[in-house]
Amino acid sequence: MAVNLAAPNPASLHPVPGVRLGITEAGIRKAGRKDLTVLLLDDGAAVGGVFTQNRFCAAPVQVCREHLARVAPERGIRALVINTGNANAGTGEEGLAHARATCAALANLLNIAPEQVLPFSTGVIMEPLPVERLMAGLPAALADAAPSAAQWLRAAQGIMTTDTVPKVFSQQIALGGQQVTITGISKGAGMIRPNMATMLGFVATDAAIAPALLQPLAQRLADASFNRISVDGDTSTNDSFIVIATGQAGNNPITALDAPEGRALTEAMTGVARQLAQAIVRDGEGATKFVTLRIEGGRDAAECRKVAYAIAHSPLVKTAFFASDPNLGRILAAVGYAGIADLDQTKIDLYLDDVPVAAQGGRHPDYREEDGQRVMKQSEFTVRVNLGRGAASDTLWTCDLSHDYVSINADYRS
Amino acid sequence: MAVNLAAPNPASLHPVPGVRLGITEAGIRKAGRKDLTVLLLDDGAAVGGVFTQNRFCAAPVQVCREHLARVAPERGIRALVINTGNANAGTGEEGLAHARATCAALANLLNIAPEQVLPFSTGVIMEPLPVERLMAGLPAALADAAPSAAQWLRAAQGIMTTDTVPKVFSQQIALGGQQVTITGISKGAGMIRPNMATMLGFVATDAAIAPALLQPLAQRLADASFNRISVDGDTSTNDSFIVIATGQAGNNPITALDAPEGRALTEAMTGVARQLAQAIVRDGEGATKFVTLRIEGGRDAAECRKVAYAIAHSPLVKTAFFASDPNLGRILAAVGYAGIADLDQTKIDLYLDDVPVAAQGGRHPDYREEDGQRVMKQSEFTVRVNLGRGAASDTLWTCDLSHDYVSINADYRS
Repeated sequence: MAVNLAAPNPASLHPVPGVRLGITEAGIRKAGRKDLTVLLLDDGAAVGGVFTQNRFCAAPVQVCREHLARVAPERGIRALVINTGNANAGTGEEGLAHARATCAALANLLNIAPEQVLPFSTGVIMEPLPVERLMAGLPAALADAAPSAAQWLRAAQGIMTTDTVPKVFSQQIALGGQQVTITGISKGAGMIRPNMATMLGFVATDAAIAPALLQPLAQRLADASFNRISVDGDTSTNDSFIVIATGQAGNNPITALDAPEGRALTEAMTGVARQLAQAIVRDGEGATKFVTLRIEGGRDAAECRKVAYAIAHSPLVKTAFFASDPNLGRILAAVGYAGIADLDQTKIDLYLDDVPVAAQGGRHPDYREEDGQRVMKQSEFTVRVNLGRGAASDTLWTCDLSHDYVSINADYRS
Repeated sequence: MAVNLAAPNPASLHPVPGVRLGITEAGIRKAGRKDLTVLLLDDGAAVGGVFTQNRFCAAPVQVCREHLARVAPERGIRALVINTGNANAGTGEEGLAHARATCAALANLLNIAPEQVLPFSTGVIMEPLPVERLMAGLPAALADAAPSAAQWLRAAQGIMTTDTVPKVFSQQIALGGQQVTITGISKGAGMIRPNMATMLGFVATDAAIAPALLQPLAQRLADASFNRISVDGDTSTNDSFIVIATGQAGNNPITALDAPEGRALTEAMTGVARQLAQAIVRDGEGATKFVTLRIEGGRDAAECRKVAYAIAHSPLVKTAFFASDPNLGRILAAVGYAGIADLDQTKIDLYLDDVPVAAQGGRHPDYREEDGQRVMKQSEFTVRVNLGRGAASDTLWTCDLSHDYVSINADYRS
């Protein structure tokens, strides 16, 4: 049961001129399930990407990094290929060869160079990728390729593994008198995906942006969205986030992210990326609550994040969320062990939504447990901590830890 | 259900000459439950202690640190007072005043200085300590004081909160022709204790040791025992570990921990401290498995610990332990995100007990899933990871994450 995450409304989706999507069933995963998706980009598109920090990263992540670094700017990335059913992680040299063979096969069909293709895999770890079946499915995926909004929805479905809801969002803004579209898809029901070890996100726009800006743009968007979520703190082997700009909107090309139009586009794309990232938390394994952690009063954003992650990763806090139990000590204890060496506990304030719970490190004199419980019984609420050390702040989105989390992860392979 | 942790056999316990223990019911916790324990030390005893790294540390921890730093060596610590039912954490200045008043009251009854008393509390966080009831119970605790083995067992029971088994172990060794006794007690069913937020450990010996060695000895013992366990990664506000040497065994005083007799005593005391620490994991909330994490082939012990903690704190790995599911990817993914920046995944080997599971970062060619499952179905097993980077190693003990963990922590206060 995803938390306040409805099935996408097709009428709310907009195609992105310059992006075609093809989806097919290659028999990689299980019968009757779409498991192979391609995104085809028109000439002129620019691409940036950020990837998992896990040192045990999957073969396709390694190949993505290589190809993004190596592709000639005048050629650019022209195709993305995504399979479910197998993560191609922990597969050694053979896995790398499979990822490269996948790119070469698609490049051959499209008459482009292999380094113009980016591969993505999600599914079981440490099993060989059924690369023959994958390659055999490519012609059908290409034959299916079309730019429509319906294809974006089908692609969102095509990259799902144990997700319960397809994740796709669109937004349109005016940019220098031109209408610009932003549409993205994501998958993942946790930072960790048991055997299905991947969070994937793809956001495309038809805005014209200087190609050199795509990489910093991808980093900014990830930092404001996918890098601000946690279901249980595990970082997968395959996490990938890709930003595409096709340049077909007719706007004057954006040459600086911090100029007014660059800022407007970044903000709108951040909005879509956040919806995609938050959808992953809402669809988190066993999640029954969507919780915003807002840490204020830090010396810098990094220490606010430390505190937010300590709270988000505490099984004790997460079970209290599940129980709607405003268990003050659990949250404050997590703040205390977050790793700020000179934290002064007598400066810490804690709020649940607008209810002041703790002040100066102790129980707020006006706090009544029923007020805290009223907030925590909601399906969405905000935990706000003020560290009383400075003016920096940061925000993280997380979910609770329920019986279903244990069931899903203990019973997953049986 | 504690994992392979039987109720203590009273015949296996030995009193420590120079330590008397008194236990009573002060009405701090709930009716019919012993909740107040004192340890009284003869003149000549020396004491060292290590405490939680949590910045949000409890009032008694702050007072313990003060008193250990301030007490005159010729007077020394002469009494410890431990209450359950209330952690006196997150209680601000009032909490500090209550901890000091407790020490003053006991000092007054014993005709010693307040800084010769160390206070310990475990129980609900952020509720005022019922200090009047505690102080009113002190005379009864003193009247109960006796040095017998039976009192050690009663003290182990007296400091329990949600522990299901009292934790007390003894060992005797010969040291320079003299028999030396080591006996200790601990409490805690997790690094985190929901409202009962404390791990406490006390180890006493009658060996004569130079008082200046007690503090480094406490650190060594903690590092080899209580600092090597994790139930779920939370660090409590009250964790305390105290080492006592009464000097009554008649051995030539130990003046160096690394001389032969110092080493022999350290080793024996480490054995008792480890039993106490491991008992906490065995009695971990909802634990059904006791797992040893052995990380080898690191450049230094610190990076081995990083990897061990990443595995021990991964909810995904812990649910796989619970399910007896040898889910390779989960463990290897945790190794990958442990924070070793230049880790080479192609050098990593993984074993379950003696079954080779992964070699050079990929599935071991001989590995069969039924072999891994056979190991994981045991109530105790070892996960061994070789990082292939050096000669350092380290060991951590942990448990699984079960449905009962969620139940215990979600339902705790209701």
